[in-house]
Amino acid sequence: MRLSQLRQLMADLQYQALLLTEPINIRYLAGFSGSAASLLITPQQQFLITDYRYTEQAAEQCPAMQIICRDRSRQSLGQCLAPLLRGIDTLHLEYQHLPVSQFLQLQQELPCQLAPGLNLTEQLRACKDHTELASVRQAVAIAEQALAWLLPQLKPGMTEAAAAALLEQQLFALGAEALAFPTILLSGARSALPHGKPGGGQLQHGDWLLIDFGAEVGGYRSDISRTYVIGAATPLQRDFYQTVLCAQQAALAIIGPGVTGDAVNAAAAAVLAASPYADFAGEGIGHGTGLVLHEYPLMRKGCDAVLQPGMVVTVEPGLYKPGFGGVRIEDNILITERGYELLTTSPKQLTVLKGFSLAALHQADSSQA
Amino acid sequence: MRLSQLRQLMADLQYQALLLTEPINIRYLAGFSGSAASLLITPQQQFLITDYRYTEQAAEQCPAMQIICRDRSRQSLGQCLAPLLRGIDTLHLEYQHLPVSQFLQLQQELPCQLAPGLNLTEQLRACKDHTELASVRQAVAIAEQALAWLLPQLKPGMTEAAAAALLEQQLFALGAEALAFPTILLSGARSALPHGKPGGGQLQHGDWLLIDFGAEVGGYRSDISRTYVIGAATPLQRDFYQTVLCAQQAALAIIGPGVTGDAVNAAAAAVLAASPYADFAGEGIGHGTGLVLHEYPLMRKGCDAVLQPGMVVTVEPGLYKPGFGGVRIEDNILITERGYELLTTSPKQLTVLKGFSLAALHQADSSQA
Repeated sequence: MRLSQLRQLMADLQYQALLLTEPINIRYLAGFSGSAASLLITPQQQFLITDYRYTEQAAEQCPAMQIICRDRSRQSLGQCLAPLLRGIDTLHLEYQHLPVSQFLQLQQELPCQLAPGLNLTEQLRACKDHTELASVRQAVAIAEQALAWLLPQLKPGMTEAAAAALLEQQLFALGAEALAFPTILLSGARSALPHGKPGGGQLQHGDWLLIDFGAEVGGYRSDISRTYVIGAATPLQRDFYQTVLCAQQAALAIIGPGVTGDAVNAAAAAVLAASPYADFAGEGIGHGTGLVLHEYPLMRKGCDAVLQPGMVVTVEPGLYKPGFGGVRIEDNILITERGYELLTTSPKQLTVLKGFSLAALHQADSSQA
Repeated sequence: MRLSQLRQLMADLQYQALLLTEPINIRYLAGFSGSAASLLITPQQQFLITDYRYTEQAAEQCPAMQIICRDRSRQSLGQCLAPLLRGIDTLHLEYQHLPVSQFLQLQQELPCQLAPGLNLTEQLRACKDHTELASVRQAVAIAEQALAWLLPQLKPGMTEAAAAALLEQQLFALGAEALAFPTILLSGARSALPHGKPGGGQLQHGDWLLIDFGAEVGGYRSDISRTYVIGAATPLQRDFYQTVLCAQQAALAIIGPGVTGDAVNAAAAAVLAASPYADFAGEGIGHGTGLVLHEYPLMRKGCDAVLQPGMVVTVEPGLYKPGFGGVRIEDNILITERGYELLTTSPKQLTVLKGFSLAALHQADSSQA
């Protein structure tokens, strides 16, 4: 099915042959989960080229493929491909992924022209089928359950790193196969680091707490952000947060099939630009998620990718003011025939641990006693 | 220190400027742990080019670097680099890592020649300093403790996937920051898949059990394999296993500073080739490990990399006979001034769970009662 969709796109573009080298694309098209293979697709044939480590696995996972076991110590990839490319004038390659050194070697060894292939597999991957959606939904559910479990566990003085470790343990306990990416859990002014690493900063009353994290299930990823103020928020924090929430609502108000990534971004960007915090707006509004965390379609200024039913994207506006803090609110969205479905359902309340300050006092009291 | 070592290598090769784009190399040289940056090194200057998401983090992590924040929506990498390359004739690049599409764009936009850079940073990375070794040792210790904990937990009928999940949970509980790679835990004939994925196969008396796994600590990885027979082994299993163990001992007998990867491989390969199982020998004997699982120096046929004190490598001969099973025994080795230090100390006994069959009977009895 996926292979015939790809062949249709290849036919439209008059590709005689396409060589895929990106492991995720190979996994998507051939079902091969190993890390070392190339996939050669022609209108009639499909060859999965791997080595002894994966030959048996490939035969098991890829019944539709002709498996070629290459002895890497005796034969280069080009030497292995050359006899398969008889009668082919032009081989299209994944220039976005192929390293220059491998490209130059193929150029020397292959009897045909090399040309850049459009990102056809990435386009196919963007629209998820039912099996893929089931994994995405489970990845979202596990992340949301872990977050709901985490919040009441937080304690005064707990470090970012300790809180992140708790969250990650819970993700695994709930069935995540892997983290979608290294958890971002930042407090206070460090929340202004859009991709910072949890450190020794301690959770304190009145501080920001930004959590951006996800789970991986069946290879598919969730990617969720929530930002809180611990205990009670100042009017400035409240206004800063509300601006981001409005920007997200503006994006959600227009998102749906037929809309471009650029338009969704512009809707949120307009809200941020009109606020007193325009200088602190992050770039872009979101991205597709799936087998890769950030995948097609990207939604940022100038992206003309058109959203289609079945696409799963994030909507994540953010403000990042150095020395003050950052707010990012990120949901996972499924584009549907009629609009969208919000996959993420975690509450977006601003404050957490309202008794936090009091609890800290009690704890200090009892430790003195 | 690392930067001055790199500059020395650059000077020897008369490089005027080197652009690093590989995130692990950038982390090693600049201390930057984010995922999106480029590093431009000239004899006098060093620029870390990133975007708004990482600017504050870069300033925090990389005090020795000049940080450039590029607005990705307005400026390409080439446009950003061009003014920094005045007076430079040739820019050396990481052809092994740089995608063709980015290379072609840089070629258009930069005012200088582009040329392939040797893997200088990979060479520097191969020899670990004291801080790096401390992480490696901890990554090995955590893996070995988790393995020792796992073996008595195994039960008749347990699936490979369930056993792998237990092992991974224990790795995290003991302080692993991540898995070094997806755990390989295979039973019976599936152990012949050198890189197979744990599945529904159940642990059975008399079956092979191959475990290849590792932990990540401070970014550094351990990579350990042990193969067992559950309960009791047949003479054929015993001989098959003993052949691999002899091959490993042959490699360890010659490994040390000044020896090539090719020579270490040849020592083990000779033992396998002289055995009745010559047709089932895996390729290569091992690889460096560190910030990347498989890194310089590779140890396989034709590799002329010379081992040096401070390098951490695996020694992992294997036999893989389809339909029968596979055996791999893999230790982590530190090359020292005088020879080597075996970092891995887990026992290499062939059988585990000697009471396994009996225990299964007992369990079956009590569940009927």
